[in-house]
Amino acid sequence: MDLDPTPRSRDIRLRARADRVIPAGMYGHQAASQLGDGYPQFFRGGSGAIIVDVDGREYVDLMCSWGPVILGHRDPAVEAAAAEQRMLGDCLNGPSEQLVLLAEKLVDTIVDADWAMMAKNGTDATTACVTIARQHTGRGLILVARGCYHGAAPWCTPIHNGTLPTDRAGVRYFDYNDVVDFDRAVTEAREDLAGVLLLPFRHVEGEDQELVDGGFARHVREVCDASDALLMLDDVRCGFRLAHGGSWESLGVRVDLSAWSKAIANGYPLAAVTGTDAVREAATKVFLTGSFWMNAVPMAASIATLDRLTAIDGVSIMARAGARLREGLLAQAGAAGLSVRYTGPDALPYMTFVGDSHRQMLHAFATEAVQNGVYLHPRHNWFMSCALDDAAVDQALIGTEPAFAVVAKQFGTTPTV
Amino acid sequence: MDLDPTPRSRDIRLRARADRVIPAGMYGHQAASQLGDGYPQFFRGGSGAIIVDVDGREYVDLMCSWGPVILGHRDPAVEAAAAEQRMLGDCLNGPSEQLVLLAEKLVDTIVDADWAMMAKNGTDATTACVTIARQHTGRGLILVARGCYHGAAPWCTPIHNGTLPTDRAGVRYFDYNDVVDFDRAVTEAREDLAGVLLLPFRHVEGEDQELVDGGFARHVREVCDASDALLMLDDVRCGFRLAHGGSWESLGVRVDLSAWSKAIANGYPLAAVTGTDAVREAATKVFLTGSFWMNAVPMAASIATLDRLTAIDGVSIMARAGARLREGLLAQAGAAGLSVRYTGPDALPYMTFVGDSHRQMLHAFATEAVQNGVYLHPRHNWFMSCALDDAAVDQALIGTEPAFAVVAKQFGTTPTV
Repeated sequence: MDLDPTPRSRDIRLRARADRVIPAGMYGHQAASQLGDGYPQFFRGGSGAIIVDVDGREYVDLMCSWGPVILGHRDPAVEAAAAEQRMLGDCLNGPSEQLVLLAEKLVDTIVDADWAMMAKNGTDATTACVTIARQHTGRGLILVARGCYHGAAPWCTPIHNGTLPTDRAGVRYFDYNDVVDFDRAVTEAREDLAGVLLLPFRHVEGEDQELVDGGFARHVREVCDASDALLMLDDVRCGFRLAHGGSWESLGVRVDLSAWSKAIANGYPLAAVTGTDAVREAATKVFLTGSFWMNAVPMAASIATLDRLTAIDGVSIMARAGARLREGLLAQAGAAGLSVRYTGPDALPYMTFVGDSHRQMLHAFATEAVQNGVYLHPRHNWFMSCALDDAAVDQALIGTEPAFAVVAKQFGTTPTV
Repeated sequence: MDLDPTPRSRDIRLRARADRVIPAGMYGHQAASQLGDGYPQFFRGGSGAIIVDVDGREYVDLMCSWGPVILGHRDPAVEAAAAEQRMLGDCLNGPSEQLVLLAEKLVDTIVDADWAMMAKNGTDATTACVTIARQHTGRGLILVARGCYHGAAPWCTPIHNGTLPTDRAGVRYFDYNDVVDFDRAVTEAREDLAGVLLLPFRHVEGEDQELVDGGFARHVREVCDASDALLMLDDVRCGFRLAHGGSWESLGVRVDLSAWSKAIANGYPLAAVTGTDAVREAATKVFLTGSFWMNAVPMAASIATLDRLTAIDGVSIMARAGARLREGLLAQAGAAGLSVRYTGPDALPYMTFVGDSHRQMLHAFATEAVQNGVYLHPRHNWFMSCALDDAAVDQALIGTEPAFAVVAKQFGTTPTV
């Protein structure tokens, strides 16, 4: 691993070329323009827990491509399954048998799934849930929690530029985990409540994460039942990292529809909607399609991913990696005299510094960490993968230790809370 | 090629299994439930111009996966480029240099492109065009031609189940190629006209195709200029089959934004938006993103696809294949005493029988053709690929000849028009 602060000549050259042919040089959640100077914009590749940027610098990957890479980059089992299907064909005039095998596997694995439909983006899946809920109930309004991300379509995008207020005419908002505010929103929706779309826990960019309150979740379920409205879980970001059968499996709160994507095929483009028999009929009435939604290779990759996750108990591996990372980071913070808040499940953690309301300390920490060969993000939660064995986590911790020192030196130590 | 009417045991078994775990057993544009009994639902793979269903039956592919497969299935040059990138990595924490190389290639190739942005679905691309147009103009209304397909999102889906009228609050409709009706729509939009989204020519399911009228296209351009509104070309379906530089390249009518997908990467999941410098700033203001939009392998496949299309002059090859198919089919129809209308560009043709307003004759023709080893669709336009050499077209024509005879026998001959 090359930790020298050599000029990032290739990344810089590519950014200049990108500026000419891509608006602002890059767009969307992977744009590095808001990150520190040490962050690469362009990557060469990855293997297991390690990614390499275009200048050959290696990083322990704590972002996992913002979620999709759950087994590690280029997992041999997934690549073999994908290659086998690719030798036959991928994009055809109809699905391959992989569609049936994957749907059966999702139904077998996910506690609330009686059926499955495939798509390509997480946004496709959340939009499909909303559409099916409206068709099922014959009503219009969907409740979502304020600030929670459900995709980039006009009805849910966090940035409203270029969209119309009417795009969001069928959406109402409440505060996550707040029964009183939720009930207010339900009351205001009156007879037009089609459903509630929830994240498994509250993760909002730049904010400490908040686990779901079991009582709140049960209350939402009861209200949906009493109102003949649907409860939809947006498991796009968390899916397959917290539980094999859905992120609320252990909570015991059933959901009517779930949206999946990201980790479902270890990086191959795929999304899915699953639902219960009660809403199956509605799912047959809506028009959901896309040019590549039936591609066979991502489905073969997904089956291999889900099989592998089950075989190795991926949830436990990621929990273990996340716990080791948490313990290491908290010890390092304490030793540096810095007080931090470490929130969310260990498999999808986020860390902030106490008193760092503008996240300047966190930006300094992340910028130093990435220069030390640890890729994490200062405003978005991190992701564990099954490739993060003890050695990889320890390698990450070697890179984060001096980052705490830099923060302490630049901002001073903070009182322990 | 096995032309025996053997039981489609594997397809039938898979359909039964799919019925349990997928709503209606299959969904979207590739659902075979509306097609004749001979149509397979599930495919095993493909190579060049030939596809194979799960029961091992082979077909000359005249649908090309509904557009994506433009060089032929598993084109060696595309597969090699994809494999080379795959050995490095695909889904990372940011784009690879393939993003820059592809954006540069699109800008070099497409006459109206000063920049490019990548996405995953055709619907992503058309939605992005509409969003950028609204951001650029600060206005809300988009004009689209009645019946023309621009994707499956709530604002454009042809089937409104599960959507809200407000989803389409920013869309107004006019008749394609109708200057008077277009002007009416413009007048009604008044000061809120953000842009016009057009297909390169009119292709509507089950209807004869209609090429764009040059005077109409120039009129739309003039009205957009006079109104400071944007002209957007939805080249998702036609792109790269009619011209290398955009489907209106030879028409000489400039467009401000274009949507691309389908054939852009020979079946790998990819979409793109291209635009002119005038709208670049607006493109930096809107939020467009997806979990797999930066995947490197589909971009490598796209570069190889575009290179190959240029190197072999794919447009000419598909025009030649389409002309040979047209001449053959028209001769067969005439010999069978059947009068047909053969419409659209040769690379994306559609054929209907005169007097067959419910398309029963066409369904019978297509059902017989597919049983004779020729895969085409009775309600959707067909697609040529560069793999359709003279021998493949002639093989297709061997399969269609008895299909005309079946139609003539079942429905009687029709007068020549």
